[in-house]
Amino acid sequence: MNPLSSPLLTDHYQLTMLESYLQQGMQETAVFELFFRKLPPTRNFLVAAGLEQALEFLENLHFSAGELTWLKARFGPALVNYLEQFRFTGDVDAMPEGTLFFPDEPILRITAPLPQAQFVESRIINLLHFETLIASKAARSVLVAPGKLLVDFGMRRAHGAEAALLAARASYLAGFSGTSTVLAAAIYGMPSFGTVAHSYIQAHTDETAAFEHLVRCHPKNSTLLIDTYDTEAAAIKVVALARKLAPEGIEVSGVRLDSGDLGMHARRVRRILDEGRLEKTRIFASGNLNENRVHELISSGAPIDGFGVGTALDVSSDAPALDCAYKLQEYAGKARRKRSEGKATWPGRKQVYRKYDPNGQAMRDVIALEKDDSHEGEPLIVPVMRNGRRIEGIDGNGKLEAIRRRTVANYARLPEPLRSLETASAYPVEISPSLQALAKQVDDECGLITSTRNLCV
Amino acid sequence: MNPLSSPLLTDHYQLTMLESYLQQGMQETAVFELFFRKLPPTRNFLVAAGLEQALEFLENLHFSAGELTWLKARFGPALVNYLEQFRFTGDVDAMPEGTLFFPDEPILRITAPLPQAQFVESRIINLLHFETLIASKAARSVLVAPGKLLVDFGMRRAHGAEAALLAARASYLAGFSGTSTVLAAAIYGMPSFGTVAHSYIQAHTDETAAFEHLVRCHPKNSTLLIDTYDTEAAAIKVVALARKLAPEGIEVSGVRLDSGDLGMHARRVRRILDEGRLEKTRIFASGNLNENRVHELISSGAPIDGFGVGTALDVSSDAPALDCAYKLQEYAGKARRKRSEGKATWPGRKQVYRKYDPNGQAMRDVIALEKDDSHEGEPLIVPVMRNGRRIEGIDGNGKLEAIRRRTVANYARLPEPLRSLETASAYPVEISPSLQALAKQVDDECGLITSTRNLCV
Repeated sequence: MNPLSSPLLTDHYQLTMLESYLQQGMQETAVFELFFRKLPPTRNFLVAAGLEQALEFLENLHFSAGELTWLKARFGPALVNYLEQFRFTGDVDAMPEGTLFFPDEPILRITAPLPQAQFVESRIINLLHFETLIASKAARSVLVAPGKLLVDFGMRRAHGAEAALLAARASYLAGFSGTSTVLAAAIYGMPSFGTVAHSYIQAHTDETAAFEHLVRCHPKNSTLLIDTYDTEAAAIKVVALARKLAPEGIEVSGVRLDSGDLGMHARRVRRILDEGRLEKTRIFASGNLNENRVHELISSGAPIDGFGVGTALDVSSDAPALDCAYKLQEYAGKARRKRSEGKATWPGRKQVYRKYDPNGQAMRDVIALEKDDSHEGEPLIVPVMRNGRRIEGIDGNGKLEAIRRRTVANYARLPEPLRSLETASAYPVEISPSLQALAKQVDDECGLITSTRNLCV
Repeated sequence: MNPLSSPLLTDHYQLTMLESYLQQGMQETAVFELFFRKLPPTRNFLVAAGLEQALEFLENLHFSAGELTWLKARFGPALVNYLEQFRFTGDVDAMPEGTLFFPDEPILRITAPLPQAQFVESRIINLLHFETLIASKAARSVLVAPGKLLVDFGMRRAHGAEAALLAARASYLAGFSGTSTVLAAAIYGMPSFGTVAHSYIQAHTDETAAFEHLVRCHPKNSTLLIDTYDTEAAAIKVVALARKLAPEGIEVSGVRLDSGDLGMHARRVRRILDEGRLEKTRIFASGNLNENRVHELISSGAPIDGFGVGTALDVSSDAPALDCAYKLQEYAGKARRKRSEGKATWPGRKQVYRKYDPNGQAMRDVIALEKDDSHEGEPLIVPVMRNGRRIEGIDGNGKLEAIRRRTVANYARLPEPLRSLETASAYPVEISPSLQALAKQVDDECGLITSTRNLCV
């Protein structure tokens, strides 16, 4: 069982429900939509991400012999026989990755026989939620650090292997320059970056010798970690080393600061490097950074050329989860609506239209019924899968690069206050009159009159 | 490349350093230790977890042909040739999983040739940090809900597939009753639990029919979700249904509440069920729960028999990361110490001794040098791997069950204030005199006198 593709990576209740649907022959077409209920206080928008992984999951979904054997010992034969042939044969419509979106807007719609559309819920949420979470966090660093090198440094404290990989992908998609995670570079074809650890310096008894060994080993590209003992003293050693190696054509590309007052050290180190004629040697900073620290450092004029953002990015530290849901909106041609306290949903198949002002800035969105085509603006949801097969998109090869460019271009079309780290007034999202009317109609049909009456019976 | 076992799941700088170590023949024995620098404000202790996965990683570490091909295009032949034969041949000493521990205490020590001991850093931290994070979060729910059914419901918002699986394992290890994640049950042999989703109720046009279908499909064990429309009205339907099905020997095992004021609904529903002679039907609650909400509900006397804890558990929402580090403490027989501002470490190979009072309650810990055996108390660090092969531990088969029992027993040996959700005074952890002396000696040897002097040169 491969944990990353096993259909058993699901909630137990999906199997319970599947068994019951099969028993009753409930296999008509269902429509589910994935949406996010509200923004964390520190987000002005979210960045859609993870669709690639979600479609890959749907396209390859099947039960292996080992999985069927495990199930056979625990569930009835009707379920196991059905799962032997199980494939996803439905349609998917979604916002392309890198689309900026807001609460209540569906970013993905699945249309498929009820057992299929229901069964895929857990992993679809697991994938889209996480990459959207990280892309939305990463966007904040990208917006405050234009022109700077931004590297994902978070693998070691990411929540497991897949989180490390998907965080590297999602942050790159949102505009980061690359990652320190080698496997992400190998799998997604993205750039990876690395310097050395403190242990490398410590393992040598002489700091200058450690520097020289590293630069000789990587003569074209080496970044020296200079804060293991005394930062400015180390910068002086770097200057002396550079002078010694210059005749051999070896340069020190950069130095890294990883502790203490980064702004203060960067200023002092910049001065030492410049006085030593190392104007081209860049200063890279890391150490418990997040978008707020990066913003402070840049605003204060600290001469830092690049930032490694680690834990805070990979765990989305200020908002480690988003409030999202995957809900049944239609079954057997009839609109459905959940009405639990505080968790009611908008029924039916929906489209989101974005209206722009004459300068190309987004003004407001309208959530409308898909079939109601009276709306102006850009429809954000597009077909991405039909009958269980992906529709080849605009991105083709070098997909991730194309998505990254599109994402960064999308930031520029957002109203300026939303691009700040400060909490801005909510972007206007309207519910179309026909969608409101449908919600009322569903309520009326179910007889929602008082909370003590029996409903929908 | 299997993302869960690929050695490329590492930081780029590990390869950079490896290349340099090989070039200089720096392959003497290194000692690295993993420790946690401080506790989040909402933790009084941490629960060691993830050792099983870390040892599995070390034991199976090797580069596949595909990985070597990828590396060959990017790194020099000396590195690639070395990696072709790369295996972990070192020793590991560690706190057994389920050990409760405190800041600065090493929970794992790796003794191996420098290139090996360094290279494994990123994934070792990635595994031990995450499971320790989740076990420590889960412990809080376990401590406030004695005798209650506690189920991990967090797969969908866990950070990817591995996080979902390891969170299920770590929370079970810390005393949870089980998980909703089927694959965790399949892989770790732990119990899984499930009810139905709101979509199941919505897909039926009649709520009673939905209930009846579920109960008939799972006549021995069914938990009905009763808050899709009107919670108390649904409880009345459950009573009527139970009356109808009783002659056939079918029972309703439980009902689930997932929204609104859970305590209020639980009281009203309990009354309705009891009046309907369904005293045995249990009430299960879920919906944005965490240990504080569980504690409030139990303290207020809400008649709830079990809790599904989801997102808050799987992302450790109040503390989504811990401040841990894997540091070089000795190389080639010489103690080493990192002295970066605010990040200095204790040098040398260490042991942690726990002293208990006559009632078996932990009183204080001493962090000492391993070779200094003058200390009383229980040594917490034990040998777990020699020459790259695991030492078979006390747990044998059914390992996870044994660790779980041991963890729960460990809670009872903690001072009572530390077992509360409130922040308690720090547990006393002493640094032994000989360890303090060694730190001073390392500093003296490196000439740590003023911050402007060149050091260790």
